[in-house]
Amino acid sequence: MSFHSFYKRAFSLFKAYPSASKLLVVSTFSGGGVLVYSDSSPLRRLLHADATLDENGQPIRKKKVVVLGSGWSGYSFLNYLNNPNYDVQIVSPRNFFLFTPLLPSVTNGTVEARSIVEPIRGLMRKKGFEYTEAECVKIDASNKKIHCRSKDGSSLKGTAEFDMDYDILVIAVGAKPNTFNTPGVEEHAYFLKEAEDALNIRHSVIDCFERASLPNLTEEERKKILHFVVVGGGPTGVEFSAELHDFLVDDVAKIYPKVQEFTRITLLEAGDHILNMFDKRITAFAEEKFQRDGIDLKTGSMVVGVTADEISTKERETGKVVSEPYGMVVWSTGIGSRPVIRDFMQQIGQGQRRVLATDEWLRVEGCDSVYALGDTATINQRRVMEDIAAIFSKADKGNTGTLNKKDFNGVVKDICQRYPQVELYLKKNKLKNIAQLLKSANGEDTQVNIEKFKQALSEVDSQMKNLPATAQVASQQGKYLAKCFNRMEKCEKKPEGPLRFRGEGRHRFQPFRYKHFGSFAPLGGEQTPEGPLRFRGEGRHRFQPFRYKHFGSFAPLGGEQTAAELPGDWVSIGHSSQWLWYSVYASKLVSWRTRMLVISDWTRRFVFGRDSSSI
Amino acid sequence: MSFHSFYKRAFSLFKAYPSASKLLVVSTFSGGGVLVYSDSSPLRRLLHADATLDENGQPIRKKKVVVLGSGWSGYSFLNYLNNPNYDVQIVSPRNFFLFTPLLPSVTNGTVEARSIVEPIRGLMRKKGFEYTEAECVKIDASNKKIHCRSKDGSSLKGTAEFDMDYDILVIAVGAKPNTFNTPGVEEHAYFLKEAEDALNIRHSVIDCFERASLPNLTEEERKKILHFVVVGGGPTGVEFSAELHDFLVDDVAKIYPKVQEFTRITLLEAGDHILNMFDKRITAFAEEKFQRDGIDLKTGSMVVGVTADEISTKERETGKVVSEPYGMVVWSTGIGSRPVIRDFMQQIGQGQRRVLATDEWLRVEGCDSVYALGDTATINQRRVMEDIAAIFSKADKGNTGTLNKKDFNGVVKDICQRYPQVELYLKKNKLKNIAQLLKSANGEDTQVNIEKFKQALSEVDSQMKNLPATAQVASQQGKYLAKCFNRMEKCEKKPEGPLRFRGEGRHRFQPFRYKHFGSFAPLGGEQTPEGPLRFRGEGRHRFQPFRYKHFGSFAPLGGEQTAAELPGDWVSIGHSSQWLWYSVYASKLVSWRTRMLVISDWTRRFVFGRDSSSI
Repeated sequence: MSFHSFYKRAFSLFKAYPSASKLLVVSTFSGGGVLVYSDSSPLRRLLHADATLDENGQPIRKKKVVVLGSGWSGYSFLNYLNNPNYDVQIVSPRNFFLFTPLLPSVTNGTVEARSIVEPIRGLMRKKGFEYTEAECVKIDASNKKIHCRSKDGSSLKGTAEFDMDYDILVIAVGAKPNTFNTPGVEEHAYFLKEAEDALNIRHSVIDCFERASLPNLTEEERKKILHFVVVGGGPTGVEFSAELHDFLVDDVAKIYPKVQEFTRITLLEAGDHILNMFDKRITAFAEEKFQRDGIDLKTGSMVVGVTADEISTKERETGKVVSEPYGMVVWSTGIGSRPVIRDFMQQIGQGQRRVLATDEWLRVEGCDSVYALGDTATINQRRVMEDIAAIFSKADKGNTGTLNKKDFNGVVKDICQRYPQVELYLKKNKLKNIAQLLKSANGEDTQVNIEKFKQALSEVDSQMKNLPATAQVASQQGKYLAKCFNRMEKCEKKPEGPLRFRGEGRHRFQPFRYKHFGSFAPLGGEQTPEGPLRFRGEGRHRFQPFRYKHFGSFAPLGGEQTAAELPGDWVSIGHSSQWLWYSVYASKLVSWRTRMLVISDWTRRFVFGRDSSSI
Repeated sequence: MSFHSFYKRAFSLFKAYPSASKLLVVSTFSGGGVLVYSDSSPLRRLLHADATLDENGQPIRKKKVVVLGSGWSGYSFLNYLNNPNYDVQIVSPRNFFLFTPLLPSVTNGTVEARSIVEPIRGLMRKKGFEYTEAECVKIDASNKKIHCRSKDGSSLKGTAEFDMDYDILVIAVGAKPNTFNTPGVEEHAYFLKEAEDALNIRHSVIDCFERASLPNLTEEERKKILHFVVVGGGPTGVEFSAELHDFLVDDVAKIYPKVQEFTRITLLEAGDHILNMFDKRITAFAEEKFQRDGIDLKTGSMVVGVTADEISTKERETGKVVSEPYGMVVWSTGIGSRPVIRDFMQQIGQGQRRVLATDEWLRVEGCDSVYALGDTATINQRRVMEDIAAIFSKADKGNTGTLNKKDFNGVVKDICQRYPQVELYLKKNKLKNIAQLLKSANGEDTQVNIEKFKQALSEVDSQMKNLPATAQVASQQGKYLAKCFNRMEKCEKKPEGPLRFRGEGRHRFQPFRYKHFGSFAPLGGEQTPEGPLRFRGEGRHRFQPFRYKHFGSFAPLGGEQTAAELPGDWVSIGHSSQWLWYSVYASKLVSWRTRMLVISDWTRRFVFGRDSSSI
């Protein structure tokens, strides 16, 4: 038996009996046998984690993909990732995926927190990925390393810190609530982003009622304790207000009849309307419903400070600052970058930006082999006008200085793919295609020169806008990137993306420059000696850029009423849209387990009412 | 319309429409009408809380019963209490009743914490009782007042303090875990008494596994982190070990396959055997099963200290102190009095005792109008020998110095009722009745004098023992006391209890002496100017003393095996006894809601497995 065939057989034995991997008999060249304790030995690592055999039976090193975060984008990426050539490692302080749209329902006990989480270990097992419960506290892109810290274990003193290296890094850590540095918010307000937040809010609401039921309180004090203030008229704030109102109406009347009359909900919105990203009809309906329900809706009211007892707002109309006593404040307005991302942005020359920027392929700008998904980053959409000369010269194959119809047809598809704003502009102006656009700018002339070309396209960039920080965008990005990774080998050979227009080979920022301080050896990856410009030449992009498909926006308004805004200008308000809403979200990511648990929670609530135990 | 009839009608209107009680039109004598805002006005309080009308239509003041605690005894008392002549107020920091037998199942996610609680507000609503979420921090028996503190609201800064007065106080606050002053236990060990404890343990177990799965740890460290130590071989400790073992076998193998081999469970018991209150067959079965399961059972091993990393035990066999590294310690051995009870004991002259003492009617000794139930107190069973002279003289109606058969028959029932140890003694010695006992001591002589009487009964007190601190005892005491309260008026007139033997009119302790420091007026209650001795004379006790009926003990041993010890020396080990167990406990106190929730949890677990999310 040659060493080689033994090696192969031992390896397949390993795969079949992973528990047998602890001890491995290695036949040596001398013909004898030695027992090698292989755990954490370099051999085992080689065999197990990093190697498969190539066509010639030689072990090839898999690329190590490290994913940070287990939210919508990270979980979606992992869920769709299906390429055996990657060794995937996920690092997240949260060992579950949280179905955030139902989070407001957790705050009043309609649904249990545990019912809307997917344990990440389940997916890991199915996919053969590795999971580590830790938080990435520093990204060291120059050494392709991340620095991690295990979360504070309640039973475990101190924290463990360790480094992990990567070939490709996928950042999906999400964002943190943004207090806009409003004094007192961090200390006194509740946020509604994580499962713990929802549980804390639930405890606190029950606490307020129990506290207000104590004897020997004045009416004033009871009113203060039962004054619930929600800051932010976005979908989360609106839904939380609605859920809280349902709780007051359905349950508090029965459980705390003596203090019911003292309850009040105030919803503060700095803008002119709540749900301002929605259709006006929905906003109007929601505002009207809230008024009917007795929810105190204050628009044009910006919070300027929170103390232990009072919340102060500046009213736009009067310009005055008013303070009101409150029992509980829930802060659900705006998101900001996490510290680890801010630090990373400094490193890669994005320190001046508000949010981490990626290109349309979700690659972090100014940094190799790092992708960012979801709320962590925004796509820095390239302007047509920046590339207009390159586009023109690319289309003008004969270098004639003018484009004819044929020249033009050669690039029109690529332009539309590469610059999504073009299509949006056409749609908005009810034009069928770019030919029509040119015609509208150029009359019957079928030949256009660069000036006329510029003129025709001068307005399209106005349609550029950042994608909203929603679960829908994040999960689509995760899925998109996974599909790119799944077809990486294929698309490296045969690119599927749009034409590279000249100028695009150059990055907008100075690329990250590797400074060699020590003996760490770069392990390959996308960085090659030739540099990015010449790597894939002037041909096509490997992949289609990410394109967001809007399936609709939903806002539950309490009392089992939901407002839905669907593509095609379809607005639906009422009972049925709630189910539509869940069905859209629940389509792929959520397992049958979670669906069943949520349905069983609803059944419990329907039969037994909400639970008022302060647990 | 006379004022009186209006008063009556207004009152019944109030009862029918409590929400209309805010505003009340009171017709004045001048014939006009005034709007009186009645909330928290003395009139309303008079109408609402403290008054009903007696036969002559005059409001009579109800006695105010304050119940401290919402555990087994308190909840059971409230559940069975059914006397409209009491104004009942419950004070407890926990606004739910916890079905403790399923607590170990919560630690590994077999059952959800929320499923095994009954919100107390539900019962309150049904019964018309008042609930206040607060902790009693001081009992001021001299003023018939308690001092309370609201629990630390997470949203509410500081705590509210207030006083509450009572006519009758029922203490059912339970006990706290007893660390026997072992250093480090308070800081490093987990307890398993409250719902939060179970949730904390659950988080911590998952934490340990996540922590042990981190990269860059030595095998030694992984072994340390996954070493679970349970201290105390009572039913809770045994059940927790069994549940933890089930979790390791059923779930960890799937979820954390890489670290499974490093897990270890150690159960430490200071005595010779685990489950030592059970039949020997059960102990043997449990010990054997644990050995088979690989649970490391160490008897004769007393914990002498816990540090952040190590637990030290003194081994009885060798006398040596050994230390072992651990990941998590669960402490479930022994209970002690809560500080508020210790303070109360000092006040009433019980400072030297280990536990608060009550008489056989659950009245706290040395204090008027205060009852104590469950783990808070023990019954200080009166010895036959203390009262032997009084019993003899009571029986010897003719003062002849000897008892004949007829004399004797007149008191035999009362003796058996009053001194439960007599019956236990007869049963143990297989005697049919006291006549047989006398005969066995006295031969054929039908006349006994005091000396022979003493001699015959000299052994019976050996059968006295304290009741165990179990849920079964607590709930029976709650039910017993509620039934006494329900028949209070009836039994005041027509006592149902055993004969009062002389000497019994006198309390064992000096009664509590009321010192009048201020202007607080005692509101009646059981304290009367005549004092307790002469109050109900020398006749009969109002009620039968509390008698505990043992329905059986159960110990779940994991793998759906349960050991049961039932009355009549019936020992059952296996599958079926688990259901028996639940059915006994679940008989009355637990609502259909809880039963359904638990069954739905079991179904969830059966279908989807346990959840490993660290939430």
